Amino acid sequence: MESLIVIKIGGNVLDEEARLTQVLNDFSLVAGNKILVHGGGKIASRIGEAMGLKPRYVDGRRITDDQTLDLVTMVYGGLVNRRIVARLQALACNALGLTGADGDCLRASKRPKGQTDYGWAGDIDLKVQDPSHCRNFLEQGWVPVFAPLTHDGAGHLLNTNADTIASSLAILMSPYYNTRLLYCFEKKGVLRNSLDEQTLIPDLTTDQYERLKAEGCLADGILPKLENAFFACRSGVQEVLIGDSRDLLAHCSGFSPGTRIHL
Amino acid sequence: MESLIVIKIGGNVLDEEARLTQVLNDFSLVAGNKILVHGGGKIASRIGEAMGLKPRYVDGRRITDDQTLDLVTMVYGGLVNRRIVARLQALACNALGLTGADGDCLRASKRPKGQTDYGWAGDIDLKVQDPSHCRNFLEQGWVPVFAPLTHDGAGHLLNTNADTIASSLAILMSPYYNTRLLYCFEKKGVLRNSLDEQTLIPDLTTDQYERLKAEGCLADGILPKLENAFFACRSGVQEVLIGDSRDLLAHCSGFSPGTRIHL
Repeated sequence: MESLIVIKIGGNVLDEEARLTQVLNDFSLVAGNKILVHGGGKIASRIGEAMGLKPRYVDGRRITDDQTLDLVTMVYGGLVNRRIVARLQALACNALGLTGADGDCLRASKRPKGQTDYGWAGDIDLKVQDPSHCRNFLEQGWVPVFAPLTHDGAGHLLNTNADTIASSLAILMSPYYNTRLLYCFEKKGVLRNSLDEQTLIPDLTTDQYERLKAEGCLADGILPKLENAFFACRSGVQEVLIGDSRDLLAHCSGFSPGTRIHL
Repeated sequence: MESLIVIKIGGNVLDEEARLTQVLNDFSLVAGNKILVHGGGKIASRIGEAMGLKPRYVDGRRITDDQTLDLVTMVYGGLVNRRIVARLQALACNALGLTGADGDCLRASKRPKGQTDYGWAGDIDLKVQDPSHCRNFLEQGWVPVFAPLTHDGAGHLLNTNADTIASSLAILMSPYYNTRLLYCFEKKGVLRNSLDEQTLIPDLTTDQYERLKAEGCLADGILPKLENAFFACRSGVQEVLIGDSRDLLAHCSGFSPGTRIHL
């Protein structure tokens, strides 16, 4: 079985030009099958502000109203994604910029209105996906670069969390490739104290995770990433890592200086 | 040899929802290999205005400065392209949204600074293209949907005229497919009097074209389209048509009610 690595880069990596340059250089050097998933970064807020859009939040989660969907389609699906592809092509990496709609790679359902209407936010149901679509791209030697957008199959794009897109792709490909999932961000990995890199947790099990969560030790931002990471680990992904984008090649080499997720 | 049709839809088609809906429906029904190329439409200007950008023109041509490149990357490469793809997927058309950077499909060179610096405008040199990249997409059953953007191979996206992208793709594919090129817009075809649809020219030869141009009979907007159309005709494209987007299926059937280009 061939190997595949799915690498997600988050907002802070995109916002710092030096970090982004390094991560794209390093990504272009990774051998074998690979997929890049990117988030948004501050650029969407900056452009939204320039256009006079006021983001709406409920319980800290942004509501994807019509204007916000247009904004993320422009910024994530256009500006960020197309620029990354052009830069990877210059590094001899045969990148292909995708949303879940392209080639019908990733379908999602509009989140049902409960107490809150999240608007055009899409949740991925792994059971309804056809993994052959994304596999075809890999088999033809292309390097998929995914923006955090999916579609509902009825003509609408949906805003979907980039961490979830990365874990979903890794899970869908895991029957066909020895699949690794790597979440890259601006910290060394999962930290007991988010301000102190000395408190890195090199190996994190489900039990430990539940304990740390109960103790309130984990920073808010890391929780959804960890939920996705453990879900991927339980769902057949061979290896799941969380670490610093500047260590990308070390993570890929099998000697990751970050956090490794265990069941 | 299999057949291929390259269909370009312009700004006016994109700006009218009823026209766009019809053209996408009809396009989804076209049998065989097909490529869609879209222009921009007024939406880029509208969003540019909302962001406070002031377009700069020299001799009626827009200058692609840094901000304008970002704008067209967002709007053409993001909003317009991604939305069309999602809508085509809902019509069971396996669309794939591309710029020239994706899969290295179309390279261009930044237009050299002469008396005017056009900024990030890209000219396509057909001699340096590798047609196998775009062919691969067709052979795998995907339907490429091109935004009017190319790349320079050095990491930069470039703004390239959509008519030129359509003719370039048709020329590049013509050694491998019986290729037809169809320019769809809001008029019946090439008109002697642009205000009178009764003056449609059903067949237009190079000689007639030169005569009409010398007489000043052709509207400004149609001239670049015709230059691209005659160039495609001279460069191996089997059939070149110009006509109304609402007649798309008639054009494809071989009984085009528009203008057919002849050498």
